[in-house]
Amino acid sequence: MAVVAQLTGVGKTGEPTPLDALRDLCAADLAQVNQLIIDNMQSEVPLIPQLAGHLIAAGGKRLRPLLTLASARLCNYRGDNHIGLAAAVEFIHTATLLHDDVVDESDLRRGRDTANAVWGNQASVLVGDFLFSRAFRLMVQSDSMRVLDILANASAVIAEGEVAQLTTANDTATDEDAYLNVIRAKTAALFAAACRIGAVIGERPDDEETALDHYGLNLGIAFQLVDDYLDYGTADIKLGKAVGDDFREGKITLPIILAYRRGDSTQQSFWRRTLEELDQNDGDFDHARSLLSQHDALSDTQVRARGYAETARAALDIFPQGPHRTALEEVVDFCVERSY
Amino acid sequence: MAVVAQLTGVGKTGEPTPLDALRDLCAADLAQVNQLIIDNMQSEVPLIPQLAGHLIAAGGKRLRPLLTLASARLCNYRGDNHIGLAAAVEFIHTATLLHDDVVDESDLRRGRDTANAVWGNQASVLVGDFLFSRAFRLMVQSDSMRVLDILANASAVIAEGEVAQLTTANDTATDEDAYLNVIRAKTAALFAAACRIGAVIGERPDDEETALDHYGLNLGIAFQLVDDYLDYGTADIKLGKAVGDDFREGKITLPIILAYRRGDSTQQSFWRRTLEELDQNDGDFDHARSLLSQHDALSDTQVRARGYAETARAALDIFPQGPHRTALEEVVDFCVERSY
Repeated sequence: MAVVAQLTGVGKTGEPTPLDALRDLCAADLAQVNQLIIDNMQSEVPLIPQLAGHLIAAGGKRLRPLLTLASARLCNYRGDNHIGLAAAVEFIHTATLLHDDVVDESDLRRGRDTANAVWGNQASVLVGDFLFSRAFRLMVQSDSMRVLDILANASAVIAEGEVAQLTTANDTATDEDAYLNVIRAKTAALFAAACRIGAVIGERPDDEETALDHYGLNLGIAFQLVDDYLDYGTADIKLGKAVGDDFREGKITLPIILAYRRGDSTQQSFWRRTLEELDQNDGDFDHARSLLSQHDALSDTQVRARGYAETARAALDIFPQGPHRTALEEVVDFCVERSY
Repeated sequence: MAVVAQLTGVGKTGEPTPLDALRDLCAADLAQVNQLIIDNMQSEVPLIPQLAGHLIAAGGKRLRPLLTLASARLCNYRGDNHIGLAAAVEFIHTATLLHDDVVDESDLRRGRDTANAVWGNQASVLVGDFLFSRAFRLMVQSDSMRVLDILANASAVIAEGEVAQLTTANDTATDEDAYLNVIRAKTAALFAAACRIGAVIGERPDDEETALDHYGLNLGIAFQLVDDYLDYGTADIKLGKAVGDDFREGKITLPIILAYRRGDSTQQSFWRRTLEELDQNDGDFDHARSLLSQHDALSDTQVRARGYAETARAALDIFPQGPHRTALEEVVDFCVERSY
């Protein structure tokens, strides 16, 4: 299916990226994962593959399933259960995106209309549920209760993080700790689980399982922080997500938290008007960016992202050098240097 | 917790119901299930137990978990995994209700404001996801891959049924077969799975597993058909659901399908206006009820419900007589005779 084949090998704009080594190393496995994804989104109800295919065709980096594939290989896993688990991880992620877009009332995702904008919230909720159920079916086929436990827990933590985010939404009083707890849950938990299960099926000792969990968790935090500052990035459109979505929705991300704390009362009033009351006028987004720049809020967010990235990299130290460790180290570079 | 304790022992209006034998027989197990439900809906994010508690406090009959408990006991299961599985079944059901109300844009459920009317669609979607994840965690603790497979499949089938219903919504051309396929998936699949897993953990032979599946499936179909005609019932309010919800939402249920087929062109225009175009005026609901009565649409739906109910009852024939079989037979009576 061409829509999936296009996703492998190179970055979206055609230039090489630090993800390439990982993609090349896992190319054969990833092709199987893609096929399994297609097989498992089929249904006699035509709207299901249509809607799921819309999001899956829109691409995404297949980052999370790649983490599962590479972690399993790093742990010398020789079976083929990592294929189904990688597909399950992508399905959990896709289900989360579908429900996120309903929650955010987003119209664009990965540069395309969101599923809810095309088919309505109702279908997005239900197809998300379907994909989530299929994820569990794929996990059952892996025949590891520990893996199921880890992924079921991660799913609950993701939902908890999303609810926590909802209850702190549009609240400029949110502090950095509360924010980090949210992204640890809503983003990093799945990265951590995706990596950890590689060690579980590889039957590696606890310290390696924990190391991969820490790698994934810190990588996920870095990834989300980068996502947050890219939303105020200099490019007109960052691939896959229009710049300014977070601002329009009044999301309180780390750049905002930093700029708000460092701003004077006039600036704080500006943030409250635009992000709490969502009373936004022409020029507000540009003004927001100038305030972020004035207070080094984007660059300081980047510094923090690099810190988590280095923690992620260091977690791999207990593994022997080799192509899979190198590829996972390069993912760290990708996550902090990416522009999409 | 009083909100749960009130649910056991008697029907909502205080008079004895055919469910009493089942409730009495499973009282100790059900108390454990209720405690497990409360324990597993806890979270550091306060909105989660608040919202989940709203629905769980509103009651419901605990019919599905009771089916799991009784099926396990019927199969001479002596362990305690049926407790966690019964709680998981209720969580899947609750998650489905939360997402249903978002999909239906309902304001009332079980005679109370729906969670989405109180906290918004976003929270309902996410707390549904949380409960669904917790359901899987409870299933993992049961340590049976076959049970996980059965419940993961049932969850996917439910979502498929809901999507199918969405795509045929407000379409008076829906025929009885299409409708039965929808309710088989969206309602009966969970009844079937709830019963079947009792035989799985009881390690009973295939024929008993299949018998319990058939019992649950046919009971579920009967249950839904009764739900459908009760929505046009004679009481002003049927407990737990306001009469006329389906009509207001333009749902094409079996009574409508029968009346539409049997109606003349003027009557068919009436149904199209009210249910397809949702152009409804004062008096339309009363007129709808008179048309249903004129064409015996409610009584014929009841006849079909009784047919499925008898099929359910007959499926139990391979089990020896005893209190659990008798109680499950009485559930059949409850499902077709109930007025709420």
